[in-house]
Amino acid sequence: MEIIRTISEMRTAVRKARLEGGTVGLVPTMGYLHKGHLSLISRATQANRLVVVSIFVNPLQFGPEEDFGSYPRDLEGDCALAAQAGADIIFAPAVEEMYPGKTLTQVEVALLGDWLCGRSRPGHFRGVTTVVSKLFNIVQPDKAYFGEKDAQQLAIIKQMVLDLNFPVEIVPVSIVREEDGLAMSSRNVYLSAQARSDALVLNGALQQARRLYGAGERNSAKIRQEMLKMIEDAPGANVDYVEICDRSNLQPIESIDKGALVAVAVRFGKTRLIDNITLTEV
Amino acid sequence: MEIIRTISEMRTAVRKARLEGGTVGLVPTMGYLHKGHLSLISRATQANRLVVVSIFVNPLQFGPEEDFGSYPRDLEGDCALAAQAGADIIFAPAVEEMYPGKTLTQVEVALLGDWLCGRSRPGHFRGVTTVVSKLFNIVQPDKAYFGEKDAQQLAIIKQMVLDLNFPVEIVPVSIVREEDGLAMSSRNVYLSAQARSDALVLNGALQQARRLYGAGERNSAKIRQEMLKMIEDAPGANVDYVEICDRSNLQPIESIDKGALVAVAVRFGKTRLIDNITLTEV
Repeated sequence: MEIIRTISEMRTAVRKARLEGGTVGLVPTMGYLHKGHLSLISRATQANRLVVVSIFVNPLQFGPEEDFGSYPRDLEGDCALAAQAGADIIFAPAVEEMYPGKTLTQVEVALLGDWLCGRSRPGHFRGVTTVVSKLFNIVQPDKAYFGEKDAQQLAIIKQMVLDLNFPVEIVPVSIVREEDGLAMSSRNVYLSAQARSDALVLNGALQQARRLYGAGERNSAKIRQEMLKMIEDAPGANVDYVEICDRSNLQPIESIDKGALVAVAVRFGKTRLIDNITLTEV
Repeated sequence: MEIIRTISEMRTAVRKARLEGGTVGLVPTMGYLHKGHLSLISRATQANRLVVVSIFVNPLQFGPEEDFGSYPRDLEGDCALAAQAGADIIFAPAVEEMYPGKTLTQVEVALLGDWLCGRSRPGHFRGVTTVVSKLFNIVQPDKAYFGEKDAQQLAIIKQMVLDLNFPVEIVPVSIVREEDGLAMSSRNVYLSAQARSDALVLNGALQQARRLYGAGERNSAKIRQEMLKMIEDAPGANVDYVEICDRSNLQPIESIDKGALVAVAVRFGKTRLIDNITLTEV
């Protein structure tokens, strides 16, 4: 596995691989890889000749009060894990390589980013779509792999690819969970032992939604109320949102006739965690 | 020469050409081709195996009060001219092909589009950068050719390519003028015989700037004042702007030490024309 730091070397490596034939898969990450990322990588290895894992903590998608500075980083550990999962190239540019001067251009998807995580993270998704556009233009992958944990990010990137005609297929990959149900996240390392235990209420509330839906409940307000109550009763949990909406256009759903995304964001101390499930048509 | 109407056929044609080797050149136009466009096309034929001319009157870059509906169109004539100039493919998608649903994604370059033409055409450059991004993603050219008449557009697209790492080289091509000095423009057909004659003041004022600069004048306010007076004295001319600025970052220049862009926009009746020259370091 090769570690590449510059855009021009990255372009050269991809050009070389193209000449040899076969497709290129990109797994964009912010590093501090966990089993969720590794499942993206191993999925990419199944369908591509060259698998590029980008590791870039993108300042543009962090708010001024957010954790850009303290976001966990471990390039050495990441490289070992990515190599094991089958990555061919780690693309780990410095901030100055990605944003050498004043960046004036931004890519923005209207509406989809205005609520859910967008409400408490203004500008976040604009930062995501801008850096993903850059990565697409640098790596020019055939396929790019995104985790379903970031359901809103996935919907926004799919919309961007559709609207701007990026020649990239977006491949969604299922959430990977710890044995006790907590969704894998690089931010889980922020949790104290107590908060780690409190955080199980996220998956608990989502499973409760699944149970209610399975028992025939279709009124999303009712499901949402039960989830809210469960999370609010949990120690240490501060609800950011609990919403039931369409997985593609993220519009709120009142009566769940054709499946829905159930998405939650909850703070445990300073750590904000997100999780979701899909209720599928039965 | 082939005429292509759909994005998928366009992708197939480019993929085929790539397999045969050689580069792809794109000349993005809104059609109603004149000698300015033809010089872009013949320039592209000199450096590429496949030359694609896109013809698409992009609704996104017209304001609600602007001339989208009446913008001159002549696909048959355009095809004849483009073929003669050496184009291999005309890509002429319908509006529904380029914007099949509600487009939520836009690409915006901050600051550079806020003044000059941007002041009287709010949202115009966002429409341009969005559709050019789409065309770049559809055609995936190695080089794209833009006329220097649209100096602000050129600066904005160069900035966008830099910021978003599009793998495309932007090639600027000089203004082509009628024998009497009027810059070629598809909108010249709007002019009455009288306005056509009045419009010569654009180039006249630019030549006056060049004379003053040649005689040693470096104070851009003085050059600008002389130009303004000349245009305001001309019959039928309503000044939109006369500005002297940096060709790359479009910032106003007070003392012209290292060359400058002199750009003008003037209305003749309902028709708004633009023109510019570069004063180069001597």
